[in-house]
Amino acid sequence: MPTDVEHACFEAGIKFGSLYHQFAGTPVSPDSAESIGRAMAEAIENQPHCADVAVDVRTDRIADELASQSADYTELTGRFLDVEMRVEYADVTVRTAMEMKDDYPLMKLVSVED
Amino acid sequence: MPTDVEHACFEAGIKFGSLYHQFAGTPVSPDSAESIGRAMAEAIENQPHCADVAVDVRTDRIADELASQSADYTELTGRFLDVEMRVEYADVTVRTAMEMKDDYPLMKLVSVED
Amino acid sequence: MPTDVEHACFEAGIKFGSLYHQFAGTPVSPDSAESIGRAMAEAIENQPHCADVAVDVRTDRIADELASQSADYTELTGRFLDVEMRVEYADVTVRTAMEMKDDYPLMKLVSVED
Amino acid sequence: MPTDVEHACFEAGIKFGSLYHQFAGTPVSPDSAESIGRAMAEAIENQPHCADVAVDVRTDRIADELASQSADYTELTGRFLDVEMRVEYADVTVRTAMEMKDDYPLMKLVSVED
Repeated sequence: MPTDVEHACFEAGIKFGSLYHQFAGTPVSPDSAESIGRAMAEAIENQPHCADVAVDVRTDRIADELASQSADYTELTGRFLDVEMRVEYADVTVRTAMEMKDDYPLMKLVSVED
Repeated sequence: MPTDVEHACFEAGIKFGSLYHQFAGTPVSPDSAESIGRAMAEAIENQPHCADVAVDVRTDRIADELASQSADYTELTGRFLDVEMRVEYADVTVRTAMEMKDDYPLMKLVSVED
Repeated sequence: MPTDVEHACFEAGIKFGSLYHQFAGTPVSPDSAESIGRAMAEAIENQPHCADVAVDVRTDRIADELASQSADYTELTGRFLDVEMRVEYADVTVRTAMEMKDDYPLMKLVSVED
Repeated sequence: MPTDVEHACFEAGIKFGSLYHQFAGTPVSPDSAESIGRAMAEAIENQPHCADVAVDVRTDRIADELASQSADYTELTGRFLDVEMRVEYADVTVRTAMEMKDDYPLMKLVSVED
C-alpha cells in the first residue's frame, strides 16, 4: 500500500496538472491578469487536500510579449505564471512551485514534511 | 464576400464557444463561483470585437448539486452559467445569451442590429 | 428575429471557439499530432449543425519549434493548426478556416451560401 | 531534498491532473469515443517520465447518458473514463488509475515500486 507521503506527493501533482491544463490557452492581457490568477487559485483550492494556492500572473512578461506582436492580448502559458501550492494529506505537508528552467516552465516539488 | 452582419454573428459565436470550452470542467463551489465568473468575463472581453460579457455562476444550482453528492465541489458546466454577451463589428451589434432549453445549455443568438 | 443566415454564422463561430479553447495547451509532438487532429475533428463534429471538420496539425511547424527548445514536446496552439469547417443550418452553408495572419492565428469566415 | 520516490509520485499526479483538465468538457458520443481516448493517451505520453497511458472512454456509459437526454452527444467527464498510467522516474515505477468511488471519479495511486 502506498504511504501517506506517497499519497501526499501524488495529490500535489494532481493539483499542478489541473491548474495548468484547465487554464492554459485563456485569453489574457495585463488588465485581466489579476482576475484569472485569483480564479485559478480559488478553483484549485476546491480540490481535496489542497490547503493553499498562490498564483501570480506576471503582467511584466505579458507586456513584453505584447510589445512584439500585433494583437493586444495573448494566451496564458507557463512563462507568465509564478505558482506556489501547499498540499496537506494526513500528517504530511507538501510544497510545490512552478518556475522557469531555461525555456520550460517546470513544476517543482519543493519540500515534503512528515 | 461575407457581409459585416455575417462576420459579426461569426465573431459572436467564437466568443461563446471559447468561453464555454476554456472553462468547462473547472472545479467550482459556491465560494469560488464569483471569482471564476469574473475571470471568464474579463478573459473573453480580451478577444477582438467583444464589447461586453456578463457571467453569473449560479450558486443556487451549484448548492443543489452538492446536496446530492459526497464531494464539496463540482465541475463547471453549462447548467451553472447564465451568460450574456455583446459583440460589435463594424456598425453591427450582436447580442447573445446562454440559457437552459430543457436539459441542454443553449447558446442563443438574441438580436442582430445593423 | 435573427435570420437563418445569421444563425448559421453564429453556429459556425461557436464551433471554432470550441475547437480552439478545448484543445489549446494539449501536449503535442510530431508523433502525437495525427491523433489529436483526428480527435479534434470528431469531437467538434458532434456539435449541432456541424457538417464537416478537417484539422491538420502541422508536424513541420512543431518540428521547427522543437529544434529551438530543450523539451521534446510543446503545447498545441494556433500556429500549428490548419482547420477548415463546414456548418449547415436550415438551407445555409457556412465555410470557415483558420490561417495565420502575420503572427496571429485568424479564425476566418470564408463563405456563406443560402 | 525530496527523494526519487516523492518526485515519482508528484510526476504521476501531474499527468493525471493534466489528462483530466485538458480534456474534460470535450463533446463526446459513442462514435467519437475511440479517437478522443487515443488522443488523450498519446498527448499525456509526451510528458516527461510518462511511460504508458491507457484510456478507455466508456461508450456504454455515454450511451446510458444519451438515453436520458435530448442531445445526441454529451461532455467528457470522469464517469466516462477508465484510465491507467505508468510513470517511471529514476528507478521508481508508479502505477495510477482512475475509478469511480460512489459518484466521484477518484484518481488513485495504485502502487509505488523502487
